[in-house]
Amino acid sequence: MKLEKNNKLVMIGDSVTDCERSRPIGEGLFGALGKGYVSIVDGLINATYPELQIRTVNVGTSGNTVLDLQDRWQTDVIDLKPDWLSIMIGINDVWRHFDVPHQNERHVDIATYEKTLRELVEQTRPLVKGLVLMTPFYIEPNPQDAMRCKMDQYGAVVKQIAEETGSLFVDTQAAFEPVLQAYYPAYIAWDRVHPNNVGHTILAKAFLKAIDFNWK
Amino acid sequence: MKLEKNNKLVMIGDSVTDCERSRPIGEGLFGALGKGYVSIVDGLINATYPELQIRTVNVGTSGNTVLDLQDRWQTDVIDLKPDWLSIMIGINDVWRHFDVPHQNERHVDIATYEKTLRELVEQTRPLVKGLVLMTPFYIEPNPQDAMRCKMDQYGAVVKQIAEETGSLFVDTQAAFEPVLQAYYPAYIAWDRVHPNNVGHTILAKAFLKAIDFNWK
Amino acid sequence: MKLEKNNKLVMIGDSVTDCERSRPIGEGLFGALGKGYVSIVDGLINATYPELQIRTVNVGTSGNTVLDLQDRWQTDVIDLKPDWLSIMIGINDVWRHFDVPHQNERHVDIATYEKTLRELVEQTRPLVKGLVLMTPFYIEPNPQDAMRCKMDQYGAVVKQIAEETGSLFVDTQAAFEPVLQAYYPAYIAWDRVHPNNVGHTILAKAFLKAIDFNWK
Amino acid sequence: MKLEKNNKLVMIGDSVTDCERSRPIGEGLFGALGKGYVSIVDGLINATYPELQIRTVNVGTSGNTVLDLQDRWQTDVIDLKPDWLSIMIGINDVWRHFDVPHQNERHVDIATYEKTLRELVEQTRPLVKGLVLMTPFYIEPNPQDAMRCKMDQYGAVVKQIAEETGSLFVDTQAAFEPVLQAYYPAYIAWDRVHPNNVGHTILAKAFLKAIDFNWK
Amino acid sequence: MKLEKNNKLVMIGDSVTDCERSRPIGEGLFGALGKGYVSIVDGLINATYPELQIRTVNVGTSGNTVLDLQDRWQTDVIDLKPDWLSIMIGINDVWRHFDVPHQNERHVDIATYEKTLRELVEQTRPLVKGLVLMTPFYIEPNPQDAMRCKMDQYGAVVKQIAEETGSLFVDTQAAFEPVLQAYYPAYIAWDRVHPNNVGHTILAKAFLKAIDFNWK
Amino acid sequence: MKLEKNNKLVMIGDSVTDCERSRPIGEGLFGALGKGYVSIVDGLINATYPELQIRTVNVGTSGNTVLDLQDRWQTDVIDLKPDWLSIMIGINDVWRHFDVPHQNERHVDIATYEKTLRELVEQTRPLVKGLVLMTPFYIEPNPQDAMRCKMDQYGAVVKQIAEETGSLFVDTQAAFEPVLQAYYPAYIAWDRVHPNNVGHTILAKAFLKAIDFNWK
Amino acid sequence: MKLEKNNKLVMIGDSVTDCERSRPIGEGLFGALGKGYVSIVDGLINATYPELQIRTVNVGTSGNTVLDLQDRWQTDVIDLKPDWLSIMIGINDVWRHFDVPHQNERHVDIATYEKTLRELVEQTRPLVKGLVLMTPFYIEPNPQDAMRCKMDQYGAVVKQIAEETGSLFVDTQAAFEPVLQAYYPAYIAWDRVHPNNVGHTILAKAFLKAIDFNWK
Amino acid sequence: MKLEKNNKLVMIGDSVTDCERSRPIGEGLFGALGKGYVSIVDGLINATYPELQIRTVNVGTSGNTVLDLQDRWQTDVIDLKPDWLSIMIGINDVWRHFDVPHQNERHVDIATYEKTLRELVEQTRPLVKGLVLMTPFYIEPNPQDAMRCKMDQYGAVVKQIAEETGSLFVDTQAAFEPVLQAYYPAYIAWDRVHPNNVGHTILAKAFLKAIDFNWK
Repeated sequence: MKLEKNNKLVMIGDSVTDCERSRPIGEGLFGALGKGYVSIVDGLINATYPELQIRTVNVGTSGNTVLDLQDRWQTDVIDLKPDWLSIMIGINDVWRHFDVPHQNERHVDIATYEKTLRELVEQTRPLVKGLVLMTPFYIEPNPQDAMRCKMDQYGAVVKQIAEETGSLFVDTQAAFEPVLQAYYPAYIAWDRVHPNNVGHTILAKAFLKAIDFNWK
Repeated sequence: MKLEKNNKLVMIGDSVTDCERSRPIGEGLFGALGKGYVSIVDGLINATYPELQIRTVNVGTSGNTVLDLQDRWQTDVIDLKPDWLSIMIGINDVWRHFDVPHQNERHVDIATYEKTLRELVEQTRPLVKGLVLMTPFYIEPNPQDAMRCKMDQYGAVVKQIAEETGSLFVDTQAAFEPVLQAYYPAYIAWDRVHPNNVGHTILAKAFLKAIDFNWK
Repeated sequence: MKLEKNNKLVMIGDSVTDCERSRPIGEGLFGALGKGYVSIVDGLINATYPELQIRTVNVGTSGNTVLDLQDRWQTDVIDLKPDWLSIMIGINDVWRHFDVPHQNERHVDIATYEKTLRELVEQTRPLVKGLVLMTPFYIEPNPQDAMRCKMDQYGAVVKQIAEETGSLFVDTQAAFEPVLQAYYPAYIAWDRVHPNNVGHTILAKAFLKAIDFNWK
Repeated sequence: MKLEKNNKLVMIGDSVTDCERSRPIGEGLFGALGKGYVSIVDGLINATYPELQIRTVNVGTSGNTVLDLQDRWQTDVIDLKPDWLSIMIGINDVWRHFDVPHQNERHVDIATYEKTLRELVEQTRPLVKGLVLMTPFYIEPNPQDAMRCKMDQYGAVVKQIAEETGSLFVDTQAAFEPVLQAYYPAYIAWDRVHPNNVGHTILAKAFLKAIDFNWK
Repeated sequence: MKLEKNNKLVMIGDSVTDCERSRPIGEGLFGALGKGYVSIVDGLINATYPELQIRTVNVGTSGNTVLDLQDRWQTDVIDLKPDWLSIMIGINDVWRHFDVPHQNERHVDIATYEKTLRELVEQTRPLVKGLVLMTPFYIEPNPQDAMRCKMDQYGAVVKQIAEETGSLFVDTQAAFEPVLQAYYPAYIAWDRVHPNNVGHTILAKAFLKAIDFNWK
Repeated sequence: MKLEKNNKLVMIGDSVTDCERSRPIGEGLFGALGKGYVSIVDGLINATYPELQIRTVNVGTSGNTVLDLQDRWQTDVIDLKPDWLSIMIGINDVWRHFDVPHQNERHVDIATYEKTLRELVEQTRPLVKGLVLMTPFYIEPNPQDAMRCKMDQYGAVVKQIAEETGSLFVDTQAAFEPVLQAYYPAYIAWDRVHPNNVGHTILAKAFLKAIDFNWK
Repeated sequence: MKLEKNNKLVMIGDSVTDCERSRPIGEGLFGALGKGYVSIVDGLINATYPELQIRTVNVGTSGNTVLDLQDRWQTDVIDLKPDWLSIMIGINDVWRHFDVPHQNERHVDIATYEKTLRELVEQTRPLVKGLVLMTPFYIEPNPQDAMRCKMDQYGAVVKQIAEETGSLFVDTQAAFEPVLQAYYPAYIAWDRVHPNNVGHTILAKAFLKAIDFNWK
Repeated sequence: MKLEKNNKLVMIGDSVTDCERSRPIGEGLFGALGKGYVSIVDGLINATYPELQIRTVNVGTSGNTVLDLQDRWQTDVIDLKPDWLSIMIGINDVWRHFDVPHQNERHVDIATYEKTLRELVEQTRPLVKGLVLMTPFYIEPNPQDAMRCKMDQYGAVVKQIAEETGSLFVDTQAAFEPVLQAYYPAYIAWDRVHPNNVGHTILAKAFLKAIDFNWK
């Protein structure tokens, strides 16, 4: 287990991270961590390693692209002084090309995505003990699907930046593969983006594997 | 892993099981399994063993005692034809002695509790492939506390019935011990009964251990 | 234009037809026809042929399969004494195989679908001046996709029954092809099932073409 | 078809245009274009000419007069950089003389109406590829009716400005004539102003005719 | 003043009478008489003749035609044992021909209207001390307007029945004439049917004149 | 009738005047004048003298004392440029002495009341064609009642100021006398302050008598 | 203290007793006893004599007269098997004569009141250990006030029945006298009927005095 | 009785004091004092000593710690010019250590608590006639319980400051002892913090005893 006693883990992202977390900062009682993978991650860590006293904070925000993360990076990441940080961003960056194709001012192209994400990671890497980069994903098994195809390209950018910066890398798209052999996407995610409890558990397990979580 | 391909797992109980599940039967899309341990169990099983195609059904109902289970046993258990069944009941049976001490018609004494639970288990054991009995619990570390003390007695009844009937046994009270060494009860459960995400994960892990779930 | 003066057109189906129509019968003022293709069809007919005094009635119901139509056929079709009837059913019959794969009691297999739809059409054909059968559809361009594939099979059943019974036939799946060459599915329908205004216009145009509507 | 590939069409007006569009700008998913003629226009264009990739934007605002348009012209028209612009304004300018006759500060007299509308059109005509001026209307067949009479005068102003500025002209009042021979106004519009689906289709068809839309 | 000490006045009708009265019977405190002419009538009578102790009851129901009155005549008129009864019905009987022209089962033709109203009046006349028949109305000054024209015919039926049965007669349509010379209909009633405070005062004054109310 | 063609009548006061009027200024369609005497006054004037085209404006505000009127006098009276103005204030000035006896900062003593009201009237009298001063009232028949007694003293101040300034004077307390001989206060006003429809009609009639309204 | 260990005290009445108690029976957690004197009585008894384990039940119902009590006496009193019973009824029996003077079917005259209350008390007296009769009251200091006067007569009936049946008697009207010398009624009860916290404390103290409660 | 005629009593604290009081200042009609001990205190004082005309003000605010009191001390205490002041604070200061153990920025340690409370008391003591310091409490009978233990330490601080400053001291924790011998905590307070009516009465009685209240 890579996290150490009293570490603070901040998890940032879009609606897949958000899941109705509390505002302005998602932590504390009464479901403040939201209903998604962040809550599962925190539950499994604290149930398994209560002695570590890990503090989990959810700062995912629905609809966010990497440019939105940049806008709130100071208050929602730097000011929170995390020991560990996870980032999962890019779904909306890609999706807007497909669901509102005419609104090109809402599309984040791959160059902008890469440049922005790299800056955020490079700026933050020295400030934290650990940084986990999770790819965006699309719960569509057909790799020729246009949106899946583009999502894979953005995922490759994440992998590249993780390698450059010595961050831990989580390939969420790959994590969905086994379940997509057994189930059609509509079972996991009504719109192929927002997962049900099974999909969120897949994300949580992929993250936990990266930090050497040990199920006891 | 004791569950087999296409098995249907029905989980019954009180508000700790319910957690805002769908009505009349808690299964399907959009959080139908509720926000508690049933959802975590289902998520972990289907994320880990998607090929087993396990079907999970939540029929917990807030406020229920063992007498309420008896009233709806035909429709909510027998008619659903489960392969596996889990039962976690007794918290309200005990609690009402303490929070509404004058309303003795709402108290389920230990003899009634034992007799009723035994009848339900004995009647159902032959109909299912597996039956899991989970103790009620009280998230209070002091074993001299009056309500904790009584809860332990009801838990002992569950253990006894499990042994008699060859059911799997889950000691939820014991499962909370390690976390109660690290945390005060108010962190796990505002009222020492309704757990947060960490507490529900503890319940889910205790159940999964009983069915030989293997974290991969 | 096949419809004649004072004809009553009843349109039945599932949520794609329903679109928040009024209850119990969808007709009259204040958006009673709902927000989907039924309203567009009625608008175009009455704006273009006001002298025909066509009466349109929407009896679509969200979530319905062909078995649900059968249950309410007497009150929602026969009792309304339509001159013309349109039927578009089958999306949920197929979809439930994929989004709730374990709940097989909610799956309508193709044999049941065919038998039930044929009975309804054969029973009703003699009672009406015209009957229009519209295929179910799935806004997914990949014909190898598992759910699209099955939907096409159900669509073929509709075509077969239309031919047998001398009903007009509308291939809605084919109608979506041109727009799917220009747009990704998420633009037309967030979940590949419930269309936006463009998708509903495609459905309306396909229906209108079948009844020889002439845009003036 | 006068609109060309990737053109952006902005439609401004009052409540007849608004119809519950999204704020601040009406475009995108989930019914953002509202429930009126703008949605029908967009639906028919994109269903018929998907390859043109036309982007439609609704900036109608309930209750607006031409003076309100002037106030928000910079942000709601100029800043949006439309290729094509449609304007339908004047109903409230006229109506307030009749429904709140004592509140003369809310009446827009015909001189003010003409001067303001001309300025807006002249200022904007050079910035766009096409500009469509639609008359206000009143769904009352009796031309001697006092309010219909005044509305016709405002409509004549629109025609005059369209001719002066080389804008396309849509006579919406005339478009309602055929349907008013077949139906009483209360069928089309409860208050003779806000149309039902048939009335909005009439408006959409009148607009589409002006831009040489071809129903295929 | 024709009403005498302790008389009970029951007023029945449609939405113009109803105006959000209390259910099931409109009488008592807190605006139970609704916001329309019934409240004004009661206010003026009790403010002017408090010593008469007049009891007013509103049993108007929105959307009613004369056939609906017939259905509830026993409970809402006979059982209440009125000393005086007023009836104003017919607006919906006429209106439905125009706003839902295809739904002919909702149209009450003039023969049915006359027969039904005559039966109700003849049956009730012997049971009460006074009976006031008020015409339906349409706040449209043009007597050639199709709906106004038909409304006048139904009004003539009311006059005929009043004369036959010795009932007091109130010509509400005539009562609106002076105000329609000064104001456009939209000032009095947004939809030419449901009056504002001025229109309801006109109705109240017309009724009060018929019962020889004397403003002191 | 003292009001003349096109006169604007502004009526200011407290909750008895307010009665859910529109904000910020109470005039126009859809019950904007509220449900109290202002609406009745406007209804009777415009129903009886439609040719005068009287414009009525309600600027009563619940809870106001004379000090609150002073605070908003510029915007709610002067800026509206009334031809006629009515003022009915003082109920809360008195009432707070009795219902919140300890909160003396909320009590308006009679000297402050007199000084403030006189200033407002003297300042405004030259700006208007007519000014009507209405006393506050308390619907309690016993003149020895402590609150009634004090209310009468404030009423006497109003009379004095009316005489000094040549304003029309309305003694609302006296107007309630006849009805209080026939009815107990609870029938007119649940709390002896907020009248029902009968009480508001009494107020309206008292006002109308002062301006020589003639019921025709 | 007259109540003994484990006694059950049922308190029945109208809205003064009800005060938003739980349904169908007012007892248990979360404010189930309502916000009035019942809650204060229970609070003071259990805070002062916790060892007595007194169980308090509120079955007051807003708007009730003695006739309504009679209708629900079996379920709401007899079936609950009280050791002690308190009854405070009569306010609505009297009030309806004054606030809805024309609705005489809602008035309970004094003979009916006396007969009904006597029957209930006589029937129940043998079934309970103690019975407390509380007079209705009217928070009006003037004994000549018409409603106060009538209320005193009903109060006298209660006293008479208490004496006949050996019930404890609480003169609530007298209990309000001292506070009415210091405060105007509007401070205690906005409408002279529904008390604030001070008024409810007066009622609670009067009741407690009757049962020999001793403040320690 | 230590309070004197016309004294103003201000009571400040956290949610136990707040109990849904009015905003911004809790005083006046309609339950403005909230549903807790402040309302009971005020009710008992004014019902027992109406001639003293005591004014009670509730400025408790849910969730407050002593640091929050400090922030609003000027507006919520000093500006209100109390004659008497009561302070009950510290529950949240302690609780946050236990229910959100990782959020140490929300913990108020005992040194900070003592320093801040002392400053507030010392600053205010000279400004008031009487000052009552009430300990925070935890409704848990086991003195070895970790949170109870810490609460007792904070309570000891309050006692120390009371002695230093000549303030009246109320030991609320001790006041709960007798009732905790008869009842389990869950009867008094669901979460061992927020009392029911019995618990609030205990608090009120403890306060009243300190000011020499005499139950008559």
